[in-house]
Amino acid sequence: MRILGIDPGSRLCGFGVIDIVGQNRNYVASGCIKAGGGTLPERVRILLDGIREVSEAYRPDIAAVEIVFVNVNPASTLMLGQARGAIIAGLVMAGLPISEYTALQVKQAVVGNGHADKEQVSAMVQRMLRLSGAPQSDAADALAVALTHAQHGTGVAGKLQKMGLNIKRGRLA
Amino acid sequence: MRILGIDPGSRLCGFGVIDIVGQNRNYVASGCIKAGGGTLPERVRILLDGIREVSEAYRPDIAAVEIVFVNVNPASTLMLGQARGAIIAGLVMAGLPISEYTALQVKQAVVGNGHADKEQVSAMVQRMLRLSGAPQSDAADALAVALTHAQHGTGVAGKLQKMGLNIKRGRLA
Repeated sequence: MRILGIDPGSRLCGFGVIDIVGQNRNYVASGCIKAGGGTLPERVRILLDGIREVSEAYRPDIAAVEIVFVNVNPASTLMLGQARGAIIAGLVMAGLPISEYTALQVKQAVVGNGHADKEQVSAMVQRMLRLSGAPQSDAADALAVALTHAQHGTGVAGKLQKMGLNIKRGRLA
Repeated sequence: MRILGIDPGSRLCGFGVIDIVGQNRNYVASGCIKAGGGTLPERVRILLDGIREVSEAYRPDIAAVEIVFVNVNPASTLMLGQARGAIIAGLVMAGLPISEYTALQVKQAVVGNGHADKEQVSAMVQRMLRLSGAPQSDAADALAVALTHAQHGTGVAGKLQKMGLNIKRGRLA
C-alpha cells in the first residue's frame, strides 16, 4: 500500500510518498511543488502539473491531505483555499481516493501530542522512516500526513480497530 | 467570440455563456452547477465534471471568473477558496484562457455603479442580452461576468484601447 501525503500551501505544496509493508513504513520519495508568484490560473496550472507528475511517477494507492488552516487574514485564507481546491482537483483527476487529516490529528498520530512543534514532527518522521537526515520542512509535514493515514488504518478496518474490534485480513475476526 | 462567465460559490457555481457578434452580445446558455453537501473531494469532483460538461457543450473561447469575497468567517472563506481553486482547475484543464474580475468591476461594467445591488445587475443583464424574463440569480451573476469581459475587450487590445491607443486588427495603428 503506497500513500501520497500532501501538505498544501498557496506558494509551496509539500509531498511525501511512503509504502506500508507489514508493520514497516518505508520512505519512497518526497519534495515540494513550487507554485510561484504568477496569476491564480498560472499557479493552478503549476500545481495541477506537479500533482500529475508525482502521481504518474510514484503511482500511489491513496492520497492523504492535511487540513491546513492558518487564519492570518481573510485574503491569505482565500489564497490557501484556492491552492487546496486546485490540489484536490489534481488528485481527483489522478483517480486517487482522498483522506483528509487536521494538523491536530497529524501531530497526535506522529508525535502523540496535538501541540507538538514542527521540529518534533520532523524528528519523529525521520525516526519512523529511518532517514539518515532531517527531511526538508514542507516534505516532512507531507510525510507526517502520509504516516498519519498509515496509522489511522486503511478505511473501514482502521475505524473498526479503533472501536476495539478485531480485524484479520480486512474482516472481523 | 464566445465567453463563459463563472460565478463561483462553495455550494453553487453559476455559469453563463454569451457570444459577441459585432456590437451585439447574444445569450447562448446559463445555469448552475450544484456542488452538493458531500465531502470536499466529492464536491470538487462534481465541480470538475460540471465545468467539463459546460466547456464541451458550448466550446467557449475564454472564461471570465468573478473574484468573489464575502468574509463571513474564516471557515467559509476557506470553503469558498477551495471551490474557486477547483473551478479554476477545471477551466485550466479545459484549456481555456482565464480572466478574473472583482464584483466591483462587474457592477461598474454592467450597471455603471460599483455599489449596484443584485436586482440592478440582473435587470441590466436581462436588458443587455434582450432576455424575455429575469435570469436565475446565480446565472445572472455569471452572465454579468461574461458581459464584463466583453466590455473590457479581449486581452491586450482592450487594455491598450483603454490607455487611449488605437488598435486595428490586434495591432497598434
